[in-house]
Amino acid sequence: MTRTSSRRSGGRNARREMRAAALTEDQRAIFPGMSGGTYKPLSPSDIEQIHEAALKALEEIGLADAPESGVEYMVKAGAILGDDGRLRYPRAVVEDALEKCAKTITLYGRDPKHDLQLSGNRVHFGTAGAAVSMVDVEGKNYRDSTLQDLHDACKIADQLENIHFVQRPLVARDIVDNLEMDLNTIYACCSGTTKHIGTSVSEPQFVPEILELLYKIAGSEEAFRARPFMANTNCFVVPPMKFATESCEAMEGCILGGMPVLLLSACMSGATAPSTIAGAIVQSVAECLAGLVYVNAIVPGHPAIFGTWPFGLDLRTGAMTSGSGEQALLSAACAQMHQFYGLPGGAPGGMTDSKLPDMQAGWEQMCSNLMCGLAGMNMVYEAAGMHASLLGFCHESLILGDDLIGQAMRCLRGIEVDETTLAVDQIRDVCIGGPGHYLGTGETLSRMQKDFVYPTFASRTSPKEWDEAGKDELVPKAKARKEEILNAPSPAAFDPILDAELRETYNIHLPSV
Amino acid sequence: MTRTSSRRSGGRNARREMRAAALTEDQRAIFPGMSGGTYKPLSPSDIEQIHEAALKALEEIGLADAPESGVEYMVKAGAILGDDGRLRYPRAVVEDALEKCAKTITLYGRDPKHDLQLSGNRVHFGTAGAAVSMVDVEGKNYRDSTLQDLHDACKIADQLENIHFVQRPLVARDIVDNLEMDLNTIYACCSGTTKHIGTSVSEPQFVPEILELLYKIAGSEEAFRARPFMANTNCFVVPPMKFATESCEAMEGCILGGMPVLLLSACMSGATAPSTIAGAIVQSVAECLAGLVYVNAIVPGHPAIFGTWPFGLDLRTGAMTSGSGEQALLSAACAQMHQFYGLPGGAPGGMTDSKLPDMQAGWEQMCSNLMCGLAGMNMVYEAAGMHASLLGFCHESLILGDDLIGQAMRCLRGIEVDETTLAVDQIRDVCIGGPGHYLGTGETLSRMQKDFVYPTFASRTSPKEWDEAGKDELVPKAKARKEEILNAPSPAAFDPILDAELRETYNIHLPSV
Repeated sequence: MTRTSSRRSGGRNARREMRAAALTEDQRAIFPGMSGGTYKPLSPSDIEQIHEAALKALEEIGLADAPESGVEYMVKAGAILGDDGRLRYPRAVVEDALEKCAKTITLYGRDPKHDLQLSGNRVHFGTAGAAVSMVDVEGKNYRDSTLQDLHDACKIADQLENIHFVQRPLVARDIVDNLEMDLNTIYACCSGTTKHIGTSVSEPQFVPEILELLYKIAGSEEAFRARPFMANTNCFVVPPMKFATESCEAMEGCILGGMPVLLLSACMSGATAPSTIAGAIVQSVAECLAGLVYVNAIVPGHPAIFGTWPFGLDLRTGAMTSGSGEQALLSAACAQMHQFYGLPGGAPGGMTDSKLPDMQAGWEQMCSNLMCGLAGMNMVYEAAGMHASLLGFCHESLILGDDLIGQAMRCLRGIEVDETTLAVDQIRDVCIGGPGHYLGTGETLSRMQKDFVYPTFASRTSPKEWDEAGKDELVPKAKARKEEILNAPSPAAFDPILDAELRETYNIHLPSV
Repeated sequence: MTRTSSRRSGGRNARREMRAAALTEDQRAIFPGMSGGTYKPLSPSDIEQIHEAALKALEEIGLADAPESGVEYMVKAGAILGDDGRLRYPRAVVEDALEKCAKTITLYGRDPKHDLQLSGNRVHFGTAGAAVSMVDVEGKNYRDSTLQDLHDACKIADQLENIHFVQRPLVARDIVDNLEMDLNTIYACCSGTTKHIGTSVSEPQFVPEILELLYKIAGSEEAFRARPFMANTNCFVVPPMKFATESCEAMEGCILGGMPVLLLSACMSGATAPSTIAGAIVQSVAECLAGLVYVNAIVPGHPAIFGTWPFGLDLRTGAMTSGSGEQALLSAACAQMHQFYGLPGGAPGGMTDSKLPDMQAGWEQMCSNLMCGLAGMNMVYEAAGMHASLLGFCHESLILGDDLIGQAMRCLRGIEVDETTLAVDQIRDVCIGGPGHYLGTGETLSRMQKDFVYPTFASRTSPKEWDEAGKDELVPKAKARKEEILNAPSPAAFDPILDAELRETYNIHLPSV
């Protein structure tokens, strides 16, 4: 036990030293892949009922519109093609896929320090989406999003500790040709970040060229297949219960080319799925299980993320709402289904319906990020920067989202209870003949980094300090940080030889730097 | 099952009718006293260890500084006064109090429709605190808070559906005399709201006059004792492990006068409690258990709310922080301890360190409100309007907090899983020979009120609609609502005869209306 004298002498110097020292992973309060799971919106019986209902839907309703190649793969795996053109899945077929499929997945970064291990309740937050507008926070305007915006988003995300992967969050609307857009999207992402990236191939016939670009960036096909740093997002269904024919064909190509896939079923609860949370999850789970049969019929054990993405709807207007409590419940409950199947999974969190990074944005983004995190979601997509029910992306909000997610991560890390943390001896020492407070105790000082998350932008000053410091506000602070990041060279930039080669082969719309 | 034809004809008219119809309690998506409890940051073994550590602290360390009267009460109940002046509590003494104490509490409103039933995991949100400043959102200034601010806060809170009780959130700094301040505080609260109120008696010798005022408002002592509409907040300890002598004396008077009490142990984790979450909870629980022995030694079964209120600290600066993830964990875990003891309990949630109702305020307020709600906290105090680590109160933020809490309540309500909500038949109907979407189904329409929370201020419009509507922002909308409420007469105003009598007896600082 620390004596009173050393407590007293500790104080300020010790604190200064601790702040200065670089922290190793196990000294940090939060880190990618921490385990959640203390929040369980579904009971074990709820989960079982959802599972049984999904199996029933697959067996009795099935999915329409599979491409010919998909029908062939899945019928070979045991699915039954009905006269009505729907593929139905006997229970055993689903169970067989659940047996064969990848239970843990590594999502590789181009830099290995950003590799993510998906399993159990391990939680990761990242960007995603297909926003068509950028939020200009000063003019309060929405304008078309561009390739440069995308590159900038990736460059910013690369610097944010709590953004663990960078799926393309917005669409480069300044590129008209779809193939050029796909290729430039990958260029813009990879030259902005060495974290794991994701995008979505627009048309099946583009897959070979996309793969060629990825192989070039990796150095070779073998190098990419060994550490595939990009996953393809496959919106493989058009809910309810129909395959998206072209997207399925693209998925087949991606799988054969060695890309991990995100099996994304994006429904809207109340429009393209039942309005009940349970019903929307049943349908999403059923669709993703069909997708799992599909993937494992092509390449058994191929890495596929179980992407149940039910979205919310405002039934008064029929408009999408992604910031609601219903949305947070939809996503968090999906995490439990992923865990029930023992599959790496993901769903959207952290979105807001607000047009600006304001108080609404804060509460909506925290709500679903926190619930997904506490529920132990492997991949929380769309976790930062997404506004206006996914229509807008905001760089400043992305930066502030890093603070917000840091706090959610502290929460999901939870509470350590043991002899030391229970601290009865410390209480005794402080109260009986001690200083009567805990401020300078060795126990307090030794835990000040490991137990606490200190935000970067969130203000903790007193009103007086705040007033004297010019009443700083969040958004201008985030804007300054954005400019600092964007004015610096990208640490992820391609080496000049590779860059020259890429620019010679492709019509790259980003200026050389 | 609804046929396709009726689905089609339903549509817009049905939606309009449903919106227009007034909702009974069981048709509403959220209501006071919904049960949380699906989030459990502590395991059963964690809880047991915290309980044992608290018992050990009570037995071996005990509490100093009890008033003479308190020593007498507690020694009679079995506590042991040591030579060091500390009262220690053998295990059996604590167990005896846990046996005797009130397990369910009704907190009465002056209007019975606002009565709150505290038990199990039933959750209520309300205001509390002792802010010394008001936030002027337009000038971004902090100024001294006044009695009128307090009255206005109560009048606003009275109109907000998701503010279930109104504990005094701010201090009337324009009243110099402490007794006058206490009396005027009660006048300002009661004439602003008929919801259950709470305040804190400044000095023990004021208790008789406070009780007299309450009895007058109730109509008689018997009427107050039958439905005590105010609870007294007793900061009965000065952590670590010391009784607050004067506050204890005031508490004794309140109990004998028939007022429910909030046994409030407000420590700061890292300063007046261990820096570990587990340790701060151990100490808070120990202190509140001592308080429980105390209360039940005076009047067995007297209504007392178990108020473990550990606050967070920024160890870099020694400043309080109430918006952190650590804070949310501290409070949420307390809810589990209350449930372990089977006691009505409360803790703070919804506070922010931000000076303004901005994005930080949104994420911090949601974080702890949500975690307290999901954990099933009976009383979430300070749930709206509190800024700058409890130093400032903001009327506009209070109004926006109502939306925020509504969303948190939707989340804690959780997910209903049954044959109907699983919706396999509906999925079949829609997919096979049906319309291919769920927008107009009878099932969707029938649930659009019961299953969904529609916010009042949070914006769900598209960027285009938002732009065309003048880019409305949250804070001005809240300000307009504030003015609307404050310009209307208070529905809680005293009847003129009582008001005249009160004004004759006391120096009431609020103008007559």
